[in-house]
Amino acid sequence: MSEVEKARVQPEPLKDFCVRVLQEMDVIREDARITADVLVTADLRGINSHGVARLRRYVEGLRDGVMLAQPETKVVAETPATATIDAGDGLGQPVSYRAMEKAIRKAKDVGAGFVTVRNSNHFGIAGYYSMMALEHDCVGISSTNAAVLVVPTFGRDAMLGTNPISVAAPAGEEWPFVLDMATSTVPRGKLEVYRRLEKEIPLGWATDETGEPTTDTERVLDNLKERAGGGLLPLGGAGELLRGYKGYGLSLLVDILCGVLPGAAYADLVYPTDEEGKPLPSAIGHFFGAWRVDAFRPVDEFKAAMDDLQRRLKDAPKAEGRERIYIHGEKEYEAAERNAREGVPLNRKVVADLRAIGEELGVAYNLE
Amino acid sequence: MSEVEKARVQPEPLKDFCVRVLQEMDVIREDARITADVLVTADLRGINSHGVARLRRYVEGLRDGVMLAQPETKVVAETPATATIDAGDGLGQPVSYRAMEKAIRKAKDVGAGFVTVRNSNHFGIAGYYSMMALEHDCVGISSTNAAVLVVPTFGRDAMLGTNPISVAAPAGEEWPFVLDMATSTVPRGKLEVYRRLEKEIPLGWATDETGEPTTDTERVLDNLKERAGGGLLPLGGAGELLRGYKGYGLSLLVDILCGVLPGAAYADLVYPTDEEGKPLPSAIGHFFGAWRVDAFRPVDEFKAAMDDLQRRLKDAPKAEGRERIYIHGEKEYEAAERNAREGVPLNRKVVADLRAIGEELGVAYNLE
Repeated sequence: MSEVEKARVQPEPLKDFCVRVLQEMDVIREDARITADVLVTADLRGINSHGVARLRRYVEGLRDGVMLAQPETKVVAETPATATIDAGDGLGQPVSYRAMEKAIRKAKDVGAGFVTVRNSNHFGIAGYYSMMALEHDCVGISSTNAAVLVVPTFGRDAMLGTNPISVAAPAGEEWPFVLDMATSTVPRGKLEVYRRLEKEIPLGWATDETGEPTTDTERVLDNLKERAGGGLLPLGGAGELLRGYKGYGLSLLVDILCGVLPGAAYADLVYPTDEEGKPLPSAIGHFFGAWRVDAFRPVDEFKAAMDDLQRRLKDAPKAEGRERIYIHGEKEYEAAERNAREGVPLNRKVVADLRAIGEELGVAYNLE
Repeated sequence: MSEVEKARVQPEPLKDFCVRVLQEMDVIREDARITADVLVTADLRGINSHGVARLRRYVEGLRDGVMLAQPETKVVAETPATATIDAGDGLGQPVSYRAMEKAIRKAKDVGAGFVTVRNSNHFGIAGYYSMMALEHDCVGISSTNAAVLVVPTFGRDAMLGTNPISVAAPAGEEWPFVLDMATSTVPRGKLEVYRRLEKEIPLGWATDETGEPTTDTERVLDNLKERAGGGLLPLGGAGELLRGYKGYGLSLLVDILCGVLPGAAYADLVYPTDEEGKPLPSAIGHFFGAWRVDAFRPVDEFKAAMDDLQRRLKDAPKAEGRERIYIHGEKEYEAAERNAREGVPLNRKVVADLRAIGEELGVAYNLE
């Protein structure tokens, strides 16, 4: 998408719009505020696939009753360093925000804290929650399982989600380290971009319905829609040559921590449907954690070493034709600075969809 | 290597031999026993690159004084859920065993426990420590930073280690899940195998001294030896196309958890040398942790779900021409069963080296 096709929208009014929309769907103000903040933060950081473009799905989920606006959430297990929360099929963001807050509180109390969540829904960008740890001088981790799109090594059908992992660690003068990665080579959204551009995808991103690697963008997306076999490849690609079983292992690990550990759904059990094919609650789960830096070593020493580590990498010699070595999170922090100043860039189609949602629910969209 | 070139050695006498060798190097019996068990367990599980083939390097490290036989280890920070141990430049295995024991004890007390280690040395297979959690119905994690071999995305020179991560989770009737992976596409040992076979490596494993991907096995190994530029690629390969920056991010994450967090060396600061190029203590670090399953949900429910998850994957349709979908750890458990019965298969060159070590130290090698 070129800049020409994008609108620039100020983040605060955009958040307010999302809050009002969610409130119209009976979400309480505080939960709507958290959800809107997670969505707009994604757009600010340049991760538009997980930004306000998702609002439509939440509105529909709430309307169809597969997501509950005012769920009964419940702590079902707890120790000084751990807890499990049942999200009661509510929106993913509010319960995730509170789970991460709880993990950080536990880290402050006993050095480390981990909170898992079951019966939840799409929680937005994983990095939002891991980054909550930063202002508390903690290292944060967050993860979620997700809709079935990824083919295990030597398998024919998608059996796992793109199951992202995010870890954030504070630094001193440099930006914090923020890793936020799907464990598949690419997410489905990337194939959708290639379809719009009528381009073939590179070998190593996806397989066809026989389990063979393919460059046929349309075929992969159609197969995924029809559940006809094939799907996205784990990081490392197909088979063993480039070690796709490592990406598959990371995806499986996420399914264990986010699905099996809290008692959520996992593998092809997520996002179930009833006998007539109507969606039921997704039953997905999440995993959040925090380690207090000063439980291991003094914070100032840690931050000085984080700065030094980053500078060593950034100052290292570059490959021929390359000018910069990046640290994870750096591009997103730079995007966020620019977008906070100039407004969040939104695709015209997303703007049209937000307008339509506003009209349906009687919430004025006056953002440009 | 074909079977013909291998000797089969019973694991217990092999351990005893290693214990006696290490005792000759002034390592106390209990530390020697732990180290030998970690080495032989690697051979049992079919990971010969990290087995008794490494004994020579430990003997030399102890002889040269860069590893200390009887180090002063010290807990330098501690909370109910965390600790940091200074290993005092001792062997990696004994301190790692005790650090993981401590993490498990903390998990029993408060639900989760994490222990980092600094000023340590090569600790063998990461999976040994994560698997210690299994008999306690905990999920275990272990990781270490390592010698500089891996090139960051867009970089020319190796700046990071192959930095492995291992996570183990118990199951019911199925084998436990044991992920144990270098965050590079392959370890250096794999290139050494290709050199012996006089084969070119696949594109995506390594780069040459300009930072370009290469198939020239000899050139990569020579460059690494001379520190002439280039090196192993992170999982996902070179550049952005197949998302090599994710593997680079995982490697960097390991350097933060194992290097920066405990106050160990990191990036190109590991394995330093003095002004004359003589090795100094490696100063590497490790990260260990355990989550008690029943702190999140009942153990029997967790194990039943682990079995179900594994069976869903193993029973899923296979890609054309494939007969089996594996779970991580399964191949290694099968190898260990066979090798416990038939003896550990050792390369003839490794046997010759063990014999030579035995002769140097006056320890009889009578294993076949």
